[in-house]
Amino acid sequence: MLKFEHPLTEKVRIYLRVEALMRQLHNSAHFAAPLDYQLFFRSLFDLMDLFEQIHIKSELTKDLDKKKLTFKNWANVPGVDQAVLSGVLNDIDENFKNLMSSERFGQSLKEDRFLSTIRQRFSIPGGSCCFDLPSLHFWLHQPLQRRLADATVWVEKLAPLHGALELLLKLTRETAHYKPQIARNGFFQSDADDANILRLEIPTDLSIYPMISGHKNRFVIKFINFETSMAYSQDVEFKLAVC
Amino acid sequence: MLKFEHPLTEKVRIYLRVEALMRQLHNSAHFAAPLDYQLFFRSLFDLMDLFEQIHIKSELTKDLDKKKLTFKNWANVPGVDQAVLSGVLNDIDENFKNLMSSERFGQSLKEDRFLSTIRQRFSIPGGSCCFDLPSLHFWLHQPLQRRLADATVWVEKLAPLHGALELLLKLTRETAHYKPQIARNGFFQSDADDANILRLEIPTDLSIYPMISGHKNRFVIKFINFETSMAYSQDVEFKLAVC
Repeated sequence: MLKFEHPLTEKVRIYLRVEALMRQLHNSAHFAAPLDYQLFFRSLFDLMDLFEQIHIKSELTKDLDKKKLTFKNWANVPGVDQAVLSGVLNDIDENFKNLMSSERFGQSLKEDRFLSTIRQRFSIPGGSCCFDLPSLHFWLHQPLQRRLADATVWVEKLAPLHGALELLLKLTRETAHYKPQIARNGFFQSDADDANILRLEIPTDLSIYPMISGHKNRFVIKFINFETSMAYSQDVEFKLAVC
Repeated sequence: MLKFEHPLTEKVRIYLRVEALMRQLHNSAHFAAPLDYQLFFRSLFDLMDLFEQIHIKSELTKDLDKKKLTFKNWANVPGVDQAVLSGVLNDIDENFKNLMSSERFGQSLKEDRFLSTIRQRFSIPGGSCCFDLPSLHFWLHQPLQRRLADATVWVEKLAPLHGALELLLKLTRETAHYKPQIARNGFFQSDADDANILRLEIPTDLSIYPMISGHKNRFVIKFINFETSMAYSQDVEFKLAVC
């Protein structure tokens, strides 16, 4: 089974992109392979670009606060595991606190002289050559320990964002289970009822992938044949969670 | 010693960027690490961007032809190893022939449906998420063998370029040896006499990197302190080859 996710709001779209970039950032921050620095700085600069598009700190704060209210409604409801509930509420409180006491994300990265020197040219095609970015070339020849220390400082600035975003997306994904569905003639539509993320599991043997359009109230899934790029016109059995 | 290179013409600047991108492309084309695809497609799309900036095939053809004329002048000159010379002339002829019989570089890559689907969104910050590029997400879950076969087809389109560029840059770099120089008060200038590439070896213990400006007739090197980003004002002993 192949898993796909699709955001139903513009904000969640950015959340999912930030989540993917944070994963890339963490994966490359050990500089284990000689070219890991490429992925590391690209992810860091992409994150800085996204932070300029939305004030992610205040959005996350609002969303965590909403989640807290939702979960508080489950207090003292019979059949709800109160120990689990109190654990979730504690998690939310802790991440909320960390978020509130953090800077506007990207602020200190923007003020970092080394990062701002290399950020501009990094997006030129082939622009990370030594003659375009001599300071980067110098830095790449510093001992690994020094580079790791620098990377740790940059990555740690984003730790409160990482924690809060992971928690919010985890709680969002847990709001629904996968249910079997059939896309008649490769087509499926449904109401979404204020949902945030669609999650799909589709069979790999059909060589198809989903094209999804929609917003938080309604969505449409069309399946596309990978080899021909044409619409797939047979029935598709798949699983769907509307979170 | 830390090595730096600096191009003295706009064309050589693009040659060096293409060389660096080809190296990244080859390094990532085995998809050994899960995120290697990021570097692979980024390098490929950056190359395609550069191919739209200059007609690199015709530039390389002209430059190889010039090199051939230069080397032909050494034929029958006493003291010149004629066997080595004839080897170089053969290398030039073979790469010239391969170059002439190749397509305009980037042409078939541009016409590849899969590549052109993902190329546009790949440069959006965080734009390689599954919801932005479902076809890429599908492809990434194909067996390694299939992905390697695809990558081989794309990379092989560039083989004549790779061979010719490597040879041209090798012959260019061999036109001069490193000579010891002193940058008085961190400053050095000289005539370049129709040169293409400056090559520097500078000591690592001074924490400095070079800032170079110049063109094929004249150039200036200033050394910069990495920690302060200020001009380094003491004498610097370094090595320089003007190729």
